[in-house]
Amino acid sequence: MKRLHFGADYYPEHWERGRWEVDARLMQQMGIQMVRMAEFSWHKLQPQEDVFDFQWLDEAIALLADYGIYTILGTPTAAPPAWLIQKHPEILPIDREGRVRGFGGRHHDCQSNPIYREAIRRLVTEMAKHYGENPWVIGWQPDNELGNSHQELCTCDSCRQHFQKWLEKKYQSTEALNAAWGTAFWSQEYNDFAQVPAPRITVTGENPSAMLDWKRFCSDLIVDFTREQTEIIRRYAKNQFITHNYMGFANKVDYYKLGELLDIVSHDQYPGGFYLSQTPHEYNHVLAATLDIVRSYKNQPFWIMEQQSGITGWEIMGRAPAPGQLSAWALQGIAHGADAIVFFRWRTCTMGTEQYWHGILPHSGNPGRRYQELKELIGTMEPLMGRLQGSMPKPQVGIVFDFEQEYAFQIQPHHQDLNYTGQLLKYYQAFYKQNISVDFVPQQGDFNQYQLLAAPLQYLMSPELEDKYFNYVRQGGHLILTMRTGVKDLHNLCMADRELPGKLSELAGVEVLDYDCLRETHVEVLFEGQKLQANIWSDLMRLRPETKILASYASEFYAGEPCITEHSFGSGNCYYVGTEPGEELMEALISQICRKAGVEPICVPVPEVECMTRENDKTRFLFVINHSSEAKSYTVPQGYHLLWGEQAGKLGAYEVQILEIEK
Amino acid sequence: MKRLHFGADYYPEHWERGRWEVDARLMQQMGIQMVRMAEFSWHKLQPQEDVFDFQWLDEAIALLADYGIYTILGTPTAAPPAWLIQKHPEILPIDREGRVRGFGGRHHDCQSNPIYREAIRRLVTEMAKHYGENPWVIGWQPDNELGNSHQELCTCDSCRQHFQKWLEKKYQSTEALNAAWGTAFWSQEYNDFAQVPAPRITVTGENPSAMLDWKRFCSDLIVDFTREQTEIIRRYAKNQFITHNYMGFANKVDYYKLGELLDIVSHDQYPGGFYLSQTPHEYNHVLAATLDIVRSYKNQPFWIMEQQSGITGWEIMGRAPAPGQLSAWALQGIAHGADAIVFFRWRTCTMGTEQYWHGILPHSGNPGRRYQELKELIGTMEPLMGRLQGSMPKPQVGIVFDFEQEYAFQIQPHHQDLNYTGQLLKYYQAFYKQNISVDFVPQQGDFNQYQLLAAPLQYLMSPELEDKYFNYVRQGGHLILTMRTGVKDLHNLCMADRELPGKLSELAGVEVLDYDCLRETHVEVLFEGQKLQANIWSDLMRLRPETKILASYASEFYAGEPCITEHSFGSGNCYYVGTEPGEELMEALISQICRKAGVEPICVPVPEVECMTRENDKTRFLFVINHSSEAKSYTVPQGYHLLWGEQAGKLGAYEVQILEIEK
Amino acid sequence: MKRLHFGADYYPEHWERGRWEVDARLMQQMGIQMVRMAEFSWHKLQPQEDVFDFQWLDEAIALLADYGIYTILGTPTAAPPAWLIQKHPEILPIDREGRVRGFGGRHHDCQSNPIYREAIRRLVTEMAKHYGENPWVIGWQPDNELGNSHQELCTCDSCRQHFQKWLEKKYQSTEALNAAWGTAFWSQEYNDFAQVPAPRITVTGENPSAMLDWKRFCSDLIVDFTREQTEIIRRYAKNQFITHNYMGFANKVDYYKLGELLDIVSHDQYPGGFYLSQTPHEYNHVLAATLDIVRSYKNQPFWIMEQQSGITGWEIMGRAPAPGQLSAWALQGIAHGADAIVFFRWRTCTMGTEQYWHGILPHSGNPGRRYQELKELIGTMEPLMGRLQGSMPKPQVGIVFDFEQEYAFQIQPHHQDLNYTGQLLKYYQAFYKQNISVDFVPQQGDFNQYQLLAAPLQYLMSPELEDKYFNYVRQGGHLILTMRTGVKDLHNLCMADRELPGKLSELAGVEVLDYDCLRETHVEVLFEGQKLQANIWSDLMRLRPETKILASYASEFYAGEPCITEHSFGSGNCYYVGTEPGEELMEALISQICRKAGVEPICVPVPEVECMTRENDKTRFLFVINHSSEAKSYTVPQGYHLLWGEQAGKLGAYEVQILEIEK
Repeated sequence: MKRLHFGADYYPEHWERGRWEVDARLMQQMGIQMVRMAEFSWHKLQPQEDVFDFQWLDEAIALLADYGIYTILGTPTAAPPAWLIQKHPEILPIDREGRVRGFGGRHHDCQSNPIYREAIRRLVTEMAKHYGENPWVIGWQPDNELGNSHQELCTCDSCRQHFQKWLEKKYQSTEALNAAWGTAFWSQEYNDFAQVPAPRITVTGENPSAMLDWKRFCSDLIVDFTREQTEIIRRYAKNQFITHNYMGFANKVDYYKLGELLDIVSHDQYPGGFYLSQTPHEYNHVLAATLDIVRSYKNQPFWIMEQQSGITGWEIMGRAPAPGQLSAWALQGIAHGADAIVFFRWRTCTMGTEQYWHGILPHSGNPGRRYQELKELIGTMEPLMGRLQGSMPKPQVGIVFDFEQEYAFQIQPHHQDLNYTGQLLKYYQAFYKQNISVDFVPQQGDFNQYQLLAAPLQYLMSPELEDKYFNYVRQGGHLILTMRTGVKDLHNLCMADRELPGKLSELAGVEVLDYDCLRETHVEVLFEGQKLQANIWSDLMRLRPETKILASYASEFYAGEPCITEHSFGSGNCYYVGTEPGEELMEALISQICRKAGVEPICVPVPEVECMTRENDKTRFLFVINHSSEAKSYTVPQGYHLLWGEQAGKLGAYEVQILEIEK
Repeated sequence: MKRLHFGADYYPEHWERGRWEVDARLMQQMGIQMVRMAEFSWHKLQPQEDVFDFQWLDEAIALLADYGIYTILGTPTAAPPAWLIQKHPEILPIDREGRVRGFGGRHHDCQSNPIYREAIRRLVTEMAKHYGENPWVIGWQPDNELGNSHQELCTCDSCRQHFQKWLEKKYQSTEALNAAWGTAFWSQEYNDFAQVPAPRITVTGENPSAMLDWKRFCSDLIVDFTREQTEIIRRYAKNQFITHNYMGFANKVDYYKLGELLDIVSHDQYPGGFYLSQTPHEYNHVLAATLDIVRSYKNQPFWIMEQQSGITGWEIMGRAPAPGQLSAWALQGIAHGADAIVFFRWRTCTMGTEQYWHGILPHSGNPGRRYQELKELIGTMEPLMGRLQGSMPKPQVGIVFDFEQEYAFQIQPHHQDLNYTGQLLKYYQAFYKQNISVDFVPQQGDFNQYQLLAAPLQYLMSPELEDKYFNYVRQGGHLILTMRTGVKDLHNLCMADRELPGKLSELAGVEVLDYDCLRETHVEVLFEGQKLQANIWSDLMRLRPETKILASYASEFYAGEPCITEHSFGSGNCYYVGTEPGEELMEALISQICRKAGVEPICVPVPEVECMTRENDKTRFLFVINHSSEAKSYTVPQGYHLLWGEQAGKLGAYEVQILEIEK
Repeated sequence: MKRLHFGADYYPEHWERGRWEVDARLMQQMGIQMVRMAEFSWHKLQPQEDVFDFQWLDEAIALLADYGIYTILGTPTAAPPAWLIQKHPEILPIDREGRVRGFGGRHHDCQSNPIYREAIRRLVTEMAKHYGENPWVIGWQPDNELGNSHQELCTCDSCRQHFQKWLEKKYQSTEALNAAWGTAFWSQEYNDFAQVPAPRITVTGENPSAMLDWKRFCSDLIVDFTREQTEIIRRYAKNQFITHNYMGFANKVDYYKLGELLDIVSHDQYPGGFYLSQTPHEYNHVLAATLDIVRSYKNQPFWIMEQQSGITGWEIMGRAPAPGQLSAWALQGIAHGADAIVFFRWRTCTMGTEQYWHGILPHSGNPGRRYQELKELIGTMEPLMGRLQGSMPKPQVGIVFDFEQEYAFQIQPHHQDLNYTGQLLKYYQAFYKQNISVDFVPQQGDFNQYQLLAAPLQYLMSPELEDKYFNYVRQGGHLILTMRTGVKDLHNLCMADRELPGKLSELAGVEVLDYDCLRETHVEVLFEGQKLQANIWSDLMRLRPETKILASYASEFYAGEPCITEHSFGSGNCYYVGTEPGEELMEALISQICRKAGVEPICVPVPEVECMTRENDKTRFLFVINHSSEAKSYTVPQGYHLLWGEQAGKLGAYEVQILEIEK
């Protein structure tokens, strides 16, 4: 695989043929080494059912090649053309309210529809045959941001039938289905798989077990949809990689499973937020966590396939990135494990929905502030990228992240402000503020590489997972468990054979006999002599004699009862957190637990300054990022010397420095 | 009828057969005397179209009988099974937007659909035949919470045709219909009943007369739906009572009319609120009013068929009841006229939508805090229940409550914050805070039993009702009338022959010549020398010479004009309240009017302490309920002695005391 | 054309025949000279498909004629009767979600539906034949408030086909369509016009070019719908005028284009707001602007066809107008150019949706406060109306207003709080507060009559319009341009050949190289030594050497850069405003620019007192309106003497005075 590090998303089909060479030259001058193209160009590639036209794309690839620029090809399956929809309107997806979603945007398709699938197979086969051995085509991206837009889609007859088949395969018999879904409740027993609905809006209420399987089915459908394309591509494109542009914590398709089809995970990083976001840009710790989760999906360095290069926006626009901020965000990606950054998009589009999702070049096509800033970034960073390539952060801390837990909390959030990913991010934030880097870990992952493992909201629980946690702690691990753990089996049925957290109560040394959903209020908690705030939930527990109390409630009718506990087990420790600690309590708690677990910060924390390391066998690289518009100082850790930047320890607004140390 | 006082809602079909006996024994130990079962078990009772299976239920009834526990049977008609929906999808209801509401919750049915009705007749007949003479089955509950979930449903073709027939029967001719609905407005005249729509969403606006008849039709449809079941049950179950679980002020079906089909009204009391409520629990005066309205529907003691026994919740949960609070709420029910309390549910369900609508037992099935608390309640209260049975509160005050007024304000609220029931509750609250107990009275009821009658928002007016009010006051009654009285005839057409409040202006001694909707502002009112706040509305009035001014406006362009008046008529007094008094003004006003009407409080008011009496020929029982988490003192009224509780006059947190006096 | 000045909207069909004469007499006594009738009476005029019945209307016209009262006839096409809908349900409109909007309100029609159109042609022909030569019928109003209710309608098959034909006529080929709409984006190319959808809801995103054409088509459809009626009416009614009741700034149909079909524009003026408004009444400057835009649509005096005469409201009501306020609002209409005022409605309706949209008479029909107030107004004003008739305001300032700009900002508002009309009103308000009167001017209008032209948000730009602005300034005009000017061509594609504002950058002396959408924040601006607030947007500009800086940014990363500029060009000046000035900055800026442009206020501003002039060859009339409930003083400008009012310079609450001066 070519060692390329900087690219741009490019749409030659949006511009006059005569401009292409200007673009190629400007790209070359800027240091762009590759482009992604064609991922929404179905009609251009197949203007009619029986006409394929690759000539324009051949020309674009060849012209860019003349300037030394390689191509990644997207399959344009997220944009089925009007001629296909006209002939087969049943391809249009139907939402939970029974409404057909029309042509005129993108993703106007039912991913289970056999005609749509057939059309895709035909198109992707033609593309793969045509480009599979083109030396300037280095990789493929099937479709675009899978799961995006389709959040609640599709509930058409085809999807319903596929869901029924999926269930039949999983459960074999309706008896098994009825048991797994608890259909005895409200007389929902099915005598025949054909009776099972795709979940349209009901009069009232839903079956949480059915909904969980529906969400699993929807994820599997996307994986299957993708596999059909990757199999075709791999047949014809033996030396080209396959990636897909993820969206961080996006929660429809299980990205771990999708990743099994891919050589590299890539990601679309838009700190400015998507078009509906209401803040100037995402919180720094959320940006960092987003990059960490993406790295964790395959536990390897990743690519940014779309890196913000200007104001984001559709109908409504976001804030303008300040000078230096685009570079800082790109470097943050590299700090967290990106081996390549592809900027979205080359030039701001004049047409269609994304006219105001700004590119490196403005509408006018004249290089401006953004071009200059990113050109300088590429120019100075490219020499280092080869050394960084393949290096990885090596965190001492893991946070368990699982898609099925996320689905289950989507179905039953418990509290109006509780959601699974948000809760994990509250733990993440406490580590982040203390300069302690973190991996996210799948439940199937290797826990033992971490000294400390935070596993919030382990709501759905299996005997296998219980065993893993027991083993982890037994062998010396420090494990954080929380409220709402061990509540459900994998069918989303409440387990009823023990008090919460089920079998894990032996590990945690607590039994939860009651709980309180805090609704609009909060609870006081006494920790290290201070009264601090906690939110959302209070578990009321009975402790084993040997269990230590780290914090107690200090308000409500359960004032004085334990809230956070510590339980030694085997060679390790299990902490149980019966509430959602407020920011201050969370930080103090994580700090104490880190000390106990021997987890060390990368360097001394400075507000709004992020520290992150990547390392390989020989070297550890330290990235220091000033996310603020103010100058900042930081203490250079001993032994490090400056690799990139002006004056080690002194940061201007949005400045980033890279230091290194030999191991 | 058996004299049973405590029960639980039980779902043996949700649990292993082997657990049933454990449950029965725990129930017996706790003092449970009866269970309600089967009200969502259609599929279990009729797993296929031509297969009925009562064996499991026979076994459950028999096993419970072994422990002395009786059964009330629900008909499971709120949960038509998947096999029925698959065969006849037209049973699914269609909402006002034309969307089919799918299978997967409950109440997924059109109550006018003839196939659904036929299936119900068949099932209920089988059940009634099978259990009509079982000595351990004491009563029946057709369907569940009729009106719930169906709020805006159904507008399918069947409903449309039934509505047209209902209209034809009521009006005989389209000429009469057109006159009654004022269809001359916006050219809505119908030449044929077949032209009348069920009210789907329009481009803009609705005909308020049509909407009122639609709401009447929807109520009548539910009554008819129920009657079909009660007739079948009465045919086969001669010695078993029929009840239905009401939902307090729920406003779809006219509960007075529904009550005519029933032997006992019962009610589902969830102080913790339903799953979307945003407060810790309902206000105490709202809980009290809810119990009073339920008693008033048949003007006799009632049952609680579902009494909260833990956290409520579906996707989102409510607050945990504090120790003592579940008992206090149950006793509040008894205080207001409940002769039996059935707790919902026996054990927290592990399956389906209501996994987090908590029961007496937690998911684990191990008796805990709630079991112990309610066991103690039952153990100490059971001995008294026989004495209380049949006794009734005897309020001096009535508040007129009518479903058609409620419908009319749903259609035209006038002000964004005005609704009929909410307005009545503002009056109720003033009485409640002064320890003055209240009946709700239907417009068809006997006004003369009350010294004081509050009749807010008598918007729809008939000559008969006018006469009743004239007679009531003429004979010495004290009547409170308010703004928006006498505005409409029973067709929801504005009456135009006089100034407001129409003929009642002679009784009230006022004519309303103009009014002001206060929108986001409020108005100052001068009352007893104080400036107090009033809201929502200002009536501007011309008074008869003899009419007395109780309060005047003190702001807006009508400052100085009368706002609240008093008019002697016959042997009584009519008060006219031209605004919505704010809380302080309301309390002062009600206090003054009570003094004039000779209405006496039960005992000296203490904040958050509720007092309520029940009495029979010989004895008056006084319930004193501390709704707060603080200890409280109250003055024991002369002559009363303590029947239940520790130390008369001293209440711990959530403590309840019962006192008695011989009459 | 008769010189009539005061009327009422009258619905004899809502009342008993016996009442009509009472109404006529009361009208006559009040000074009412004309009524509008029949605009929702389709069923009354055509009770069945083959039965026309004009007798009742003949009688009403004749009876009113006996009292000297003339008639304007509305065609009742906004209310197709139930018999027509029953026979042809496809007339019902379908919304963007695919939902049929049902019968039961008004405007339940698809305006492109051929059957509905045929029915209209038949009805209007019958009406026009019957009344076209009736001497007491003076004019016609086709349909009612065209564009109202239909905002997002209709997307049925008929509309889709009409849209496709409209596109085919406009673009001739799909190649041209694809280029114009930029369908290369997201593969939206059409091979056939039959593939183009009417815009139903999509999965995500819309094509802004397609949406702009859709909005143009919808406007053209309404014009075409109206033309069909005006052609029929003109055929038979040679001496009767045609008008239509506009709704101020309502933004569906292009009122300039609609106006070409009409003799007079009329307007419905409801200061109390429409039924959902949340304020006591519209802001005074918005009321004034609304009247100015209506005058500007044909640049001639207009009529008020519906002038508020009581509380407005449907389900929710508005505030009661204070004594004097109804008169003040009517006189405000006259001040801004109304030659006639028709009050809506004569008597408050007892039936249907608008029971609480109050008329001159209350429900009871007894003349009250409102009747007396308006009677006095008519009695004293009628003698002056002849002198005022035809006179016009002669503002020195024009504000450019264009419907396509409005459509484009509906499609892409840029910022959550930005909308086109709202932005114009911010400029308007600054003039209003300084007593500087304003015309709105179409882009096709004559700019040269104004010393100062404000053209905010000239987003869609054509070479012709660019030329007009160049010429205007070259010849000495003072032009205000703003942010977001010259962004798009007329296809709603971003122009890419220059930096913003495109060719106009030569006129403005600035190039916009970057910008910042301010989202939830604002920016500080330094102007005349003061730091003031600006909102929404910041343009970052490069200036020509000769361009003067009027204001600079004082916060954000571009602090110190220019924000508002002035550029001399030819004999005039072009001001460029790169942000939305906050209220204080706007006022200071407009004040400075007015001084430079030699624009003079009518008289010295007094808060809440509005001044407005109308003039003819000989006389200038000055209206002074106190919009407040407090007494106010103002300085009588030199040479004016009091024509109407008590004491020049002294105004009671809501008092209006009219002064005059000979020219």
